[in-house]
Amino acid sequence: MTYCLAMRLEGGLVFASDTRTNAGVDDVGTYRKLHEFRPAPDRVFVLQSAGNLATTQEVLDLVRRDLGAPGDHESLATVGRLFEAALYVGRLIRRVVDAHSDAFGGGPGATATFILGGQIGDEAPDILLVYPEGNYIRASDERPFLQIGESKYGKFMLEYAARAHVDMLTATKVALGSLMSTAQANLSVGPPYDIGVYPAGSYDVRQVRVPADSPLLDKLNRVWTRHLVEALRDLPDISSEDFTVADDPTEHLRP
Amino acid sequence: MTYCLAMRLEGGLVFASDTRTNAGVDDVGTYRKLHEFRPAPDRVFVLQSAGNLATTQEVLDLVRRDLGAPGDHESLATVGRLFEAALYVGRLIRRVVDAHSDAFGGGPGATATFILGGQIGDEAPDILLVYPEGNYIRASDERPFLQIGESKYGKFMLEYAARAHVDMLTATKVALGSLMSTAQANLSVGPPYDIGVYPAGSYDVRQVRVPADSPLLDKLNRVWTRHLVEALRDLPDISSEDFTVADDPTEHLRP
Repeated sequence: MTYCLAMRLEGGLVFASDTRTNAGVDDVGTYRKLHEFRPAPDRVFVLQSAGNLATTQEVLDLVRRDLGAPGDHESLATVGRLFEAALYVGRLIRRVVDAHSDAFGGGPGATATFILGGQIGDEAPDILLVYPEGNYIRASDERPFLQIGESKYGKFMLEYAARAHVDMLTATKVALGSLMSTAQANLSVGPPYDIGVYPAGSYDVRQVRVPADSPLLDKLNRVWTRHLVEALRDLPDISSEDFTVADDPTEHLRP
Repeated sequence: MTYCLAMRLEGGLVFASDTRTNAGVDDVGTYRKLHEFRPAPDRVFVLQSAGNLATTQEVLDLVRRDLGAPGDHESLATVGRLFEAALYVGRLIRRVVDAHSDAFGGGPGATATFILGGQIGDEAPDILLVYPEGNYIRASDERPFLQIGESKYGKFMLEYAARAHVDMLTATKVALGSLMSTAQANLSVGPPYDIGVYPAGSYDVRQVRVPADSPLLDKLNRVWTRHLVEALRDLPDISSEDFTVADDPTEHLRP
């Protein structure tokens, strides 16, 4: 599987992706799932991918081919709004999935889901989740984050800490913490982790790759474990008076 | 959905269950999912249920009927080992699912999964997960916990903190923390929470119900949030030197 997340903050956007892929536990690979496109000075896009690796790679190849080919066809260079970029990516996903669906028995086939984030011109930066069906949603104002892939394990941290007013540096820690908690619980998600930070209006994404043996990751893990242990120590005890020997519907059956 | 977990510690067993059921978001109910059976002085069982509510209720009714009916048929009062109790519960699940499978189009129907925990005689206390197929697994020695239902959201805390040497009081906090983190991220899991604590050799389960408006839950939540915020503050910063403007495969396309 995969785990990618994106946050939309007052200061800009934060993206985080793992790099683990697997076709069964005996075929584990490392692939970048955070992709940046800057086809013109007034626009930047980040695409994060989850799902079938062949589908995501073909979609990204089509995005690149459309950008490189001459003529006035649609591409990330021509769309006027982020939602149009999302619909464009959605059409590419459907085209790729449809092209191979026969080989998958006409079923849903090898689908993929994307997060598209970025900024075009004066439009505010935003993040959108593009479904395999080709439509999209934005993040909500109250919980300004999106997740794709193995989204359940690391959601608690985003629910507690991902708010629009959070500064970008803290948000990157929240993102890394969410990735680490997921990797701890699910082997199909793992380092290295790719982090992308987009300050609003900059039209440049700053990226960092955090490898598995990174001292940063080691320290993050130790601090996080220490606080978890301290939190458990500080949590109030359930007092012994709270406990009762429960009514037992089969008590009358005792000898 | 549902979230139930059980831990096997050196001191005994700890069980925790939420109580939320739903048949669609417009039909949400509260049902006990932690059930205790003490059919004889030398044995005690806890059954936790996840899955179709009708199936779990019918299985529990059959367990009770077998206990109450005269004759020398199999029941929780007659099994000699915990794994035999698990196989017995597994047969009941299959019987109930099979009885209604026609109405579900012959498909898997309305299945259910159980955790069975307890102690029989001098056998060590244990926890077993009973699958809808009727077979079972035990928890591992390294990660001595089992989960059923919405198990992903709260797994990080068990991965970090659920170890056999943990004392029972701390384990109940870990269990409540895991439940709370799940409920925070998933509406289909919610309070009140049922906690059961079984000290080894006691043949009595001490139970407590933690309601939604419990001061304990409120305090747990505040302590947990405070530590999460402190952990984020203490986590090492990704230094600005770590960031690079990434190589962009489409950079040559810029005007």
